[in-house]
Amino acid sequence: MPAANSGSAASQTVHVPLGDRSYDISIGTGNLVDVGRWVTSLRSVTHAVVISDANVAKHYQQRVEEAIAAEGVRVTSLVVPAGEPSKSVSTAQSLWEAALADRVDRKSVVVALGGGVVGDLAGFIAATMTRGLDFFQIPTSLLAQVDSSVGGKVGINLPSAKNIVGAFWQPKGVLIDTAVLETLPRREYLSGLAEVVKYGVTLDAEFFSYLEANVQPMLDRDPAVLQKIVARSCELKAQVVAEDETETTGLRAILNYGHTYCHALETVAGYGEYLHGEAVSVGMLCASRLGEKLGVFDAESTQRQFKLLSALELPVATPKLDERAILSVMQRDKKVEHGKLRFIVPHRIGKVVLTPDVPSDLAMDAWREGCEA
Amino acid sequence: MPAANSGSAASQTVHVPLGDRSYDISIGTGNLVDVGRWVTSLRSVTHAVVISDANVAKHYQQRVEEAIAAEGVRVTSLVVPAGEPSKSVSTAQSLWEAALADRVDRKSVVVALGGGVVGDLAGFIAATMTRGLDFFQIPTSLLAQVDSSVGGKVGINLPSAKNIVGAFWQPKGVLIDTAVLETLPRREYLSGLAEVVKYGVTLDAEFFSYLEANVQPMLDRDPAVLQKIVARSCELKAQVVAEDETETTGLRAILNYGHTYCHALETVAGYGEYLHGEAVSVGMLCASRLGEKLGVFDAESTQRQFKLLSALELPVATPKLDERAILSVMQRDKKVEHGKLRFIVPHRIGKVVLTPDVPSDLAMDAWREGCEA
Ligand SMILES: NC(=O)c1ccc[n+]([C@@H]2O[C@H](COP(=O)([O-])OP(=O)(O)OC[C@H]3O[C@@H](n4cnc5c(N)ncnc54)[C@H](O)[C@@H]3O)[C@@H](O)[C@H]2O)c1
Ligand SMILES: NC(=O)c1ccc[n+]([C@@H]2O[C@H](COP(=O)([O-])OP(=O)(O)OC[C@H]3O[C@@H](n4cnc5c(N)ncnc54)[C@H](O)[C@@H]3O)[C@@H](O)[C@H]2O)c1
Ligand SMILES: [Zn+2]
Ligand SMILES: [Zn+2]
Repeated sequence: MPAANSGSAASQTVHVPLGDRSYDISIGTGNLVDVGRWVTSLRSVTHAVVISDANVAKHYQQRVEEAIAAEGVRVTSLVVPAGEPSKSVSTAQSLWEAALADRVDRKSVVVALGGGVVGDLAGFIAATMTRGLDFFQIPTSLLAQVDSSVGGKVGINLPSAKNIVGAFWQPKGVLIDTAVLETLPRREYLSGLAEVVKYGVTLDAEFFSYLEANVQPMLDRDPAVLQKIVARSCELKAQVVAEDETETTGLRAILNYGHTYCHALETVAGYGEYLHGEAVSVGMLCASRLGEKLGVFDAESTQRQFKLLSALELPVATPKLDERAILSVMQRDKKVEHGKLRFIVPHRIGKVVLTPDVPSDLAMDAWREGCEA
Repeated sequence: MPAANSGSAASQTVHVPLGDRSYDISIGTGNLVDVGRWVTSLRSVTHAVVISDANVAKHYQQRVEEAIAAEGVRVTSLVVPAGEPSKSVSTAQSLWEAALADRVDRKSVVVALGGGVVGDLAGFIAATMTRGLDFFQIPTSLLAQVDSSVGGKVGINLPSAKNIVGAFWQPKGVLIDTAVLETLPRREYLSGLAEVVKYGVTLDAEFFSYLEANVQPMLDRDPAVLQKIVARSCELKAQVVAEDETETTGLRAILNYGHTYCHALETVAGYGEYLHGEAVSVGMLCASRLGEKLGVFDAESTQRQFKLLSALELPVATPKLDERAILSVMQRDKKVEHGKLRFIVPHRIGKVVLTPDVPSDLAMDAWREGCEA
C-alpha cells in the first residue's frame, strides 16, 4: 500500500451502517470551521449544548461555539475539569442541572468536544436528558478519534468500577478534524497510536504494513498520514460495531486484543501510572507471546509488533509487579472456570481469535517473559 | 357491556406490540405467587436485583424474593424509602453502587416491585446499569398497574424538574396481581381510578359506561371488576404507545387529557397537597368545560364525568388558588405562541383532540367556572 501523499487532504467520510441508527464520520484537516454547517445540515437545530473539558475548551470552545451560533443556533457551553474523574455521577448531575437551567428541551442537541472522557460523559447526558437527545461528537484526542467516538458506548464510572453506568447511544454524526491533534500532549498522542496498531493486528495486515512504513510521518503528525490512519481505524471499528452493536454476539470482543493484560496492568500499577494506550502496548505484546505459547502465532510477528511499538515510543516491557495481583485481576475480569482465562489471541497479523480456555499458568508465563531486566 | 362476573378470574394477557421490544402484561388475582416461574420462563435468569420501597417491601418483598429464589436465581433485594423523593440522582447512585457491590453483571435482571416511583426508578437503573439490563415490572399501586408500568418511560427527577432524566426502556414483561391493591391506602387507590376514568373519556365510551355501572364494586375493590378495569386500561394505553413509542408523532399526547390543568394545580397547590389522580380528576373537568366553551363538547358529558368522579370520591371542584400562577405554569408547560395554549380537548366521551391554539382567557374561564363556593 503506497503512503498517502502529504499536504492538505480533502475530507472523507466513513459510514457506520446501523439501520435507523446509521450515521457518518466526517474526517478532514482543518474542517472544524465547518462545524456549524455540519450540525445544522444533519438536522434542524435551534439549541445546542456543547460539552468540553478545560484543556480542550481553552483551544477550541470559542471557535466551535461561534461557528454553531453563526447558523442561528442558541449555544449552551458547559466545561468540566479535564481528566477521568469527570466521568462521575456528580459531574453528570451538575451537567443535567446546568442544561436544564439553560432551558434544554427535547429538541436540543448535545455536542461532545473533547477526548474520550468528554465523549463518554456527554454521550451519557445525551442518552438520558429528557429521555434522549440527539448527539454529535467532535473527538479531539487521537484515542477518541480512532476508538471511543465510534460505536455508541457512552457512560460514567462508579468509584469501584469504570464505565459501569451508561447506555448504547449512537451519535447522529461524528466530525473529526485531525488538525486539533497538534495541541494534544505528545504522550497522549503516542498512547492513541497503540490503538491504531491494534486495528492492524486484529483486522488488517496491509494496514499494519502501512504503519510500519510510516513511523516517522506518524511521529510528526503528518496531516495526510493522520487522515489515513484515523479513517482506516474508524472504518475497521465501524465494521465490527455494525455486526455486534450491543456486544451480544461476542464479535465486538476482538477489539479487546491486548486489553485483558492491559486492565491488569492499569489496575495493579495504580491509577495514572500508565496511559491507557501505553498499557495496551504492553498488553498486546503479552497476548502475542501467549499466542506463541499456544502454538498459534509466530515469534517473528511478535517481533514486528515489538519493533513498531518501540519505534512509536510506546512501552514494550512488562514491569515488575506483584504477579498474584495481576492474575487475580485477570481472573475477576474474564474468569470462565477452573483456572481457565479468556483472551483475544493473535493467529497472524490481521487475525485474532477469542480463546476462552487459556490455562492461567500459560497466561502468566507470557506476562513474565516480557519483564524488563 | 355487561359487568364481568365476580369472584376469582383466570389471569389474562395484554400484548404490547413494539417490534423486537414487544412484551406481555399478565394480569390476574393472586398470581404474585407465580413470579419466580414467570421471570424464568421469559428468559434464563441467574441473578435478579429486586427493587422495592419500604411500604411495599413490608407486605410483598419476602414473598417475591422467595418465589424467585425457589427457581434457583440469586436475589439482591434493594429497598428505598417510599415516596417521590426517592426518584433522585442520589438514590439512583446508591442503587447502582449496591447492585455493583452485590456483583451485578450484564446477565443480571432488574425487577421493580412497587408503585410508579419504584417502577420509574428501577427502570432507570435497568436502562443504565452495564449499559442496559433486562427489566421486569410488578406494579403494586393502581396508578402503576394502569399507567406507569405501560409504555417504557423510566426516569428520575432533578430538584427543579420531574422526570427530566431518563430513558425509554421497555420491560421484558409486566406481572399484575390486582390482589396486592388490598393493602394500598384508600386515597392512593381512589387516585388511581381517575386515570382509569381518563381512558374511558379519551378512548372508549363503552368502557366509560362500564365504569358508571360499576361504581360500587370499584369502591369495594371487587377482584373481577378490578381485573377488567386494569386489563382494559392497559390495552388502551398499549395501543397508543404502540403507535408512538417515543412520543414523536404527538399521538401519545392524548393520554395527557386533563393533565395541563393537573400540573398547574399540583404545582401551585404545592407538593403533596393533591395526589396525582386527584389533580387529574379536577383537570379533566376543567378540560371538559373548556370543550364546552370551544363549542365541541356538551354539558351533559361534562356532567357524566362529574357524577362518576364524585361517586369515586375524587375531588371535582377547582380550589381557590392564584389564577395568575395557574396560568403561568400552563404557559410554561405548553406554550405555543402569543397567549395561545395547547390542550387535549374532549369532543365526546371516547374521543379527545389535541388542540394547539386555545386562547388563554378561555382556558382560565374554564378553570374559574369549577371553583368551589
Ligand atoms: N466509548 C468507548 O467506546 C471508549 C473506548 C475507549 C476508551 N473510552 C474512554 O475514553 C477515555 C479516555 O479517552 P482519552 O484518552 O481521549 O482521555 P481524555 O478525554 O482525558 O483526553 C486526554 C487528555 O488530552 C486532553 N485533550 C484532548 N484533546 C486535546 C487536544 N486536541 N488538545 C489538547 N488537549 C487535548 C484532555 O483534556 C485530557 O487531558 C476513558 O474514560 C475511556 O474509558 C471509551
Ligand atoms: N412512567 C410513566 O409512564 C409514568 C406515568 C404516570 C406516573 N408516573 C410516575 O409514577 C409516580 C407515582 O406513582 P404512584 O402513584 O404509584 O406512587 P408511589 O409509587 O409513591 O406509590 C404510592 C404509595 O403507595 C404505596 N404502595 C404502592 N403499592 C402498594 C401496595 N400494594 N400496598 C401498600 N402500599 C403500596 C407506596 O409505597 C407509596 O407510599 C410518579 O413519580 C410519576 O411521575 C410515571
Ligand atoms: Zn483500549
Ligand atoms: Zn397522570
